[in-house]
Amino acid sequence: MSARVYLDWNATAPLRAEARVAMLAAMDVVGNPSSVHAEGRAARAVVERAREQLAEALGAAAADIVFTSGATEAAALALAGRDLQCAMVEHECVTAWCEAELDAGADGKVAVEDPTNSALQLANGETGIIQDLPEGLAVSDLVQGFGKLPFGFDWSGVSIGFVSAHKFGGPKGVGALVMKQGIDLLPRMRGGGQEMGRRSGTENVIGIAGLGAAAAAARRDLDNGRWDEVAALRDRLESRLLDAVPDLAIIGRGQKRLPNVTCFAVPGWKGETQVMQMDLAGFAVSAGSACSSGKVRPSKVLRAMGLDDVTASSALRVSIGPDTKEGDLMRFADAWIKAHQRRAATTGAAAAG
Amino acid sequence: MSARVYLDWNATAPLRAEARVAMLAAMDVVGNPSSVHAEGRAARAVVERAREQLAEALGAAAADIVFTSGATEAAALALAGRDLQCAMVEHECVTAWCEAELDAGADGKVAVEDPTNSALQLANGETGIIQDLPEGLAVSDLVQGFGKLPFGFDWSGVSIGFVSAHKFGGPKGVGALVMKQGIDLLPRMRGGGQEMGRRSGTENVIGIAGLGAAAAAARRDLDNGRWDEVAALRDRLESRLLDAVPDLAIIGRGQKRLPNVTCFAVPGWKGETQVMQMDLAGFAVSAGSACSSGKVRPSKVLRAMGLDDVTASSALRVSIGPDTKEGDLMRFADAWIKAHQRRAATTGAAAAG
Repeated sequence: MSARVYLDWNATAPLRAEARVAMLAAMDVVGNPSSVHAEGRAARAVVERAREQLAEALGAAAADIVFTSGATEAAALALAGRDLQCAMVEHECVTAWCEAELDAGADGKVAVEDPTNSALQLANGETGIIQDLPEGLAVSDLVQGFGKLPFGFDWSGVSIGFVSAHKFGGPKGVGALVMKQGIDLLPRMRGGGQEMGRRSGTENVIGIAGLGAAAAAARRDLDNGRWDEVAALRDRLESRLLDAVPDLAIIGRGQKRLPNVTCFAVPGWKGETQVMQMDLAGFAVSAGSACSSGKVRPSKVLRAMGLDDVTASSALRVSIGPDTKEGDLMRFADAWIKAHQRRAATTGAAAAG
Repeated sequence: MSARVYLDWNATAPLRAEARVAMLAAMDVVGNPSSVHAEGRAARAVVERAREQLAEALGAAAADIVFTSGATEAAALALAGRDLQCAMVEHECVTAWCEAELDAGADGKVAVEDPTNSALQLANGETGIIQDLPEGLAVSDLVQGFGKLPFGFDWSGVSIGFVSAHKFGGPKGVGALVMKQGIDLLPRMRGGGQEMGRRSGTENVIGIAGLGAAAAAARRDLDNGRWDEVAALRDRLESRLLDAVPDLAIIGRGQKRLPNVTCFAVPGWKGETQVMQMDLAGFAVSAGSACSSGKVRPSKVLRAMGLDDVTASSALRVSIGPDTKEGDLMRFADAWIKAHQRRAATTGAAAAG
């Protein structure tokens, strides 16, 4: 039996070796970062080192970073009570707090009317479509774009952004908000006054250490062009699929997209069914975002782009990373094409029968 | 030079070997627990195994557990918007959301008027004083008591409790809320609908694995009487200090206290000064809770018990655990007694001079 092939990096990326090393080292640091003794100061140093690593990778100042338990918490901190406008292509942790009144075009691009009153993602996790962030944008979900795309917070014109460690090779359950200086946010976690009073609670020292190391490594990969190689690999996958299924609908093809994702649909062949068939064949892929993956319903993202319910229920997402091997990806392509042919034969037979 | 001696377990406990092993194993589990493929199911299994471990250690059902990023988040989830009553002996993550109208006696015990409308801690982190939790209590901060005291959520009469992993040998940045069935809470983290919709956000799989393993190990230690040994060790420390300084004020002595903590004051000798002197001598101890330790001000907990500002500013907390060696603790006692004698000589000379 072949080994499993993981092609669901946008749901969560494997833990980077650099993150693992940093986390192991942090396990030996016993203190509470708020304690003033040597053990406390050592734990504080781990947190502040990671803050500098993330700030440098993001193009921001360390003082602008607020560590959180992930993007969902960061989104709530950035958005709750503000009634910003957004589009339905945003992640549910954003639409939970926004007025989803903005339209996405058929190309997935969102027309922002009032940037200072809007939230707009850097890139979409399902389709990979990249947005042009307007100057003065209030909030941007950087989760899927950070580490895969050149991005500098300082020159982005964005007031508040947020990231999630496990999307760039850090651990799950830790993330960060980055904000321009001078912005005041109402703290939602109150108590000990950590994170300059913006987010109380003893810091996730081990997780934060992993986040920092992963951010630095992700930035290095980006600077070294590794994501260009990933994009080339993704393009070869799409070419092979199109060779076999010429009328395959690849969402966002030809647009600016994340380098590592392809989202395609065979109308009527449910995404969930494909996920299960591919899982049995040894491949981990997804039908939409992971959070929604237990729920069998059309992708809100694809619906917002004007796709009909049947097509929006039939999308498959394949997302890869720098560790993905071409041979594994092409084995996936072959398995999917075979399943597609089997289905076409059955459907054809049924239609003929 | 001697090795450092860590005597600040109530600020944060060292990571248990069992937690480390579980976390290392979880690092190799790549999936997102919300993903339906094999990798996702493996991650889900890690989370659910930990949920069962914590539930068993707490005396609750697995379905009653909601994982959070720690006690501060759990407290906000349990308390925000409810205006419950509490006393100032509670941790700041509780007083942030309560009306601090309840009185603590000189013995630190809080008289609850209306349990269904009140929050009361199981035990205090600074003094170790244990409260009698009244039947029907709305919320209890179990952070410092869980794992050190016999406690069963099911028979406690408490509606909602919460714990923090790093206080019982798990990692920092992960905790849990435990609630009686049928209680509805307004989710504060919204989006993907994780934790049965009560707390969205991709689960901290590695941290949760560590929490579960630490909870099981803590429960084992408790059942095996290891905390009785810790209490005996703490008592020997107190005896030695009292032998040297007969008029030493030990807060809560003779009352039901946590087995591992002693809090004592020499009025006029600032706790912060003692912490620094002991730190230089190689011992990590604390002057109050870690969150507040950067702030030089009288302990709110001791003030609430009616101690004057001078005494409340002069307390030192020593908190130990099952790994604490008697020799190390007695070396601390000797170092503290020596510092006390030096100070007495200086103060006496100053008074005479």
